[in-house]
Amino acid sequence: MPKISQKGINMPESPIRKLVPYAEKAKSKGHHVYHLNIGQPDIKTPQGALQAVKDANFEVLEYSHSAGFESYRKKLATYYQGHHLNVDFSDIIITTGGSEALMFALGSTLDPDDEIIIPEPFYANYNGFSISNGVKIVPVMSSIDNGFALPSISEFEKLITPKTKAILICNPGNPTGYLYSEQEMQQLTDLVVKHDLFLIADEVYREFAYDGFKHISVMSIPALANHAIMVDSVSKRYSMCGARIGCIVSKNKELMTAAMKFAQARLSPPTFAQIASEAALDTPESYFDEVITEYRERRDVFIKALQEIDGVQVTAPHGSFYCVAKFPVKNADDFAKWLLEDYDLNGETVMIAPAAGFYSTPGVGLDEARMAYVLKKEDLLRSAQILKEALKVYQGIEK
Amino acid sequence: MPKISQKGINMPESPIRKLVPYAEKAKSKGHHVYHLNIGQPDIKTPQGALQAVKDANFEVLEYSHSAGFESYRKKLATYYQGHHLNVDFSDIIITTGGSEALMFALGSTLDPDDEIIIPEPFYANYNGFSISNGVKIVPVMSSIDNGFALPSISEFEKLITPKTKAILICNPGNPTGYLYSEQEMQQLTDLVVKHDLFLIADEVYREFAYDGFKHISVMSIPALANHAIMVDSVSKRYSMCGARIGCIVSKNKELMTAAMKFAQARLSPPTFAQIASEAALDTPESYFDEVITEYRERRDVFIKALQEIDGVQVTAPHGSFYCVAKFPVKNADDFAKWLLEDYDLNGETVMIAPAAGFYSTPGVGLDEARMAYVLKKEDLLRSAQILKEALKVYQGIEK
Ligand SMILES: Cc1ncc(COP(=O)(O)O)c(C=O)c1O
Ligand SMILES: Cc1ncc(COP(=O)(O)O)c(C=O)c1O
Repeated sequence: MPKISQKGINMPESPIRKLVPYAEKAKSKGHHVYHLNIGQPDIKTPQGALQAVKDANFEVLEYSHSAGFESYRKKLATYYQGHHLNVDFSDIIITTGGSEALMFALGSTLDPDDEIIIPEPFYANYNGFSISNGVKIVPVMSSIDNGFALPSISEFEKLITPKTKAILICNPGNPTGYLYSEQEMQQLTDLVVKHDLFLIADEVYREFAYDGFKHISVMSIPALANHAIMVDSVSKRYSMCGARIGCIVSKNKELMTAAMKFAQARLSPPTFAQIASEAALDTPESYFDEVITEYRERRDVFIKALQEIDGVQVTAPHGSFYCVAKFPVKNADDFAKWLLEDYDLNGETVMIAPAAGFYSTPGVGLDEARMAYVLKKEDLLRSAQILKEALKVYQGIEK
Repeated sequence: MPKISQKGINMPESPIRKLVPYAEKAKSKGHHVYHLNIGQPDIKTPQGALQAVKDANFEVLEYSHSAGFESYRKKLATYYQGHHLNVDFSDIIITTGGSEALMFALGSTLDPDDEIIIPEPFYANYNGFSISNGVKIVPVMSSIDNGFALPSISEFEKLITPKTKAILICNPGNPTGYLYSEQEMQQLTDLVVKHDLFLIADEVYREFAYDGFKHISVMSIPALANHAIMVDSVSKRYSMCGARIGCIVSKNKELMTAAMKFAQARLSPPTFAQIASEAALDTPESYFDEVITEYRERRDVFIKALQEIDGVQVTAPHGSFYCVAKFPVKNADDFAKWLLEDYDLNGETVMIAPAAGFYSTPGVGLDEARMAYVLKKEDLLRSAQILKEALKVYQGIEK
């Protein structure tokens, strides 16, 4: 029997998916499960995006240009310019989801054994993309006690070695919901310019900023011109995760030449989905106003209900649609399994994502869990109530 | 200015695309260019596949399962079983094109610095995927003189080291069109079993077999159960390259567990395209009969016309829709550029793909070019005529 690669062994199982068998067990008992564990929004995809695919007429479904439709790239550049980002269409390569953009960004900036610094907790699939590329994540700790703010610059500098090629941030954050301030972005800018590093910014939640706080893109900071790589996606913005369209954006021409070679190797991004994504750019502002209002209300309702539970620590984040909460339990992984396997409140239970899978440092975040507020308000309230009642029982039995 | 990775520097430019600026020049002069250089078929996509996308009704375009729709995987398994392949739906992960399946296959079997043996000339993007994964291609030479038959097993054995983890074949071949015989497949089977290697078979042209010859899949050879990894795609089969749907297939459970972790990291394959691909499975046999007849006639017409050109060496391959021909020139790359830059026959010229880019060994295949017979018969005849007249001129001026 031939042996698989060490890489294949080291690839992590998704922390979100590994509880799925437990959820299936709960469902097989007839229990209803509230899914707080995944970032699949229930918001409707803009009708115009779906209709454009129905209206498209062609006889041969051909490869597109490896960088994506030129018409789409041009319209997307205009969209970014409208958001005060300095992006020309030639700075954009359309990718198969933000996921592929992250792969291209890592492949174009790091060689095997090189190091990338990432504030933790971070989007768990950064682990998979790093192992795929044979590169090493060096985590820098952010803490729930100050809402997961940017770690101090001295913490970053302690970790920089000759192998450090890039810093990766997720802004607004998944799993934290943290939105970096202007001052924090300035600190990061000074840091990467001083140490001549790339700053990769995963901005797939860029539209989801609340409470009057403004999202600050790396593409709006002139000093970052040669340093910034933006990763974006239509998945969350238009609630069209299944399209699989994203992009990698940079003004660094050398970087884009490298990324383009990765793009050519895989031929092209999906054609139907590009048609939908290009049409999605015509979505009226009112769609976003409604969506943002809806998410903000959900956040307010949900966070407040969580804060009212004895022993739960959580702050209202200003971005994305996730939060990380600390629970009065020893091990959130055991708690999450127990919720699915052994608990129900009148036939209902909840699924949460244990946060340990979002930390790279072992043993950290064991009592934390990530929750996505992608459900209707009444379902979020009900979920919080279930958690409250469940904790009363669980705290009595936890060993 | 931060430095890009060595990987990003080493990634090859596609040999097919690097002539594009020359083709654009020819077009800007008003010349018509016959594109023999790319494998983008002109055949119509089955109407049912396109219609299924128009008919699909949903409000949220969601992520699919990371392995693809279960309904699609089940129907695809039935398709393979109908072709006498031993494939259960659980042996299939749907990927974003055959391209992504190749990435998953390499990532799951090889670690950085490991070696994979590939008969050359080979599909040029194997270079990109290997560099991406940090692994080393060890080429084994096949020759135009015997129509690019499988190199002898002793040639393979000479190259096997402790770092060798897999052999990759493309069957039927791109760029060669070569279809491996039952005896050749048996030899490969004995070899990988003896040395405990994976045999990755890129079978994206599996339906394109002519002259009564049968394609022999690695999934139809029982002794390969733990060794075989099949890569497939809807791109060429249904002329739907823009869908970006393929799959990785294996009965080796460990391998599939690893591949699944790569699949989870990138979340899911494109949803619209899966709808089209699932519907494409209902395409009547008559579609393939027509398509195969059309390609065979094109091949016959084109190869005969090429063979009638003084000094051109080419044999009629039994599979795919490519051929590699030897031209009476010193350097096919220069010839290809000259055809676009300096030549036209009554305002028309042709674009061919210099074969050197398909060889890994430097200096080999310099006088060869790959051509795809994806144009109408009259256009292929006209292309051959242009090549014939062009060679008369070029041979007089080649330095
Ligand atoms: C932070 C972050 N980055 C990237 C992605 C990848 O998204 P996609 O590939 O759907 O664009 C996700 C998806 O959840 C995410 O949360
Ligand atoms: C031999 C071979 N393998 C794989 C591919 C990848 O095709 P796709 O990613 O469109 O499935 C191609 C495309 O031309 C090919 O020729």
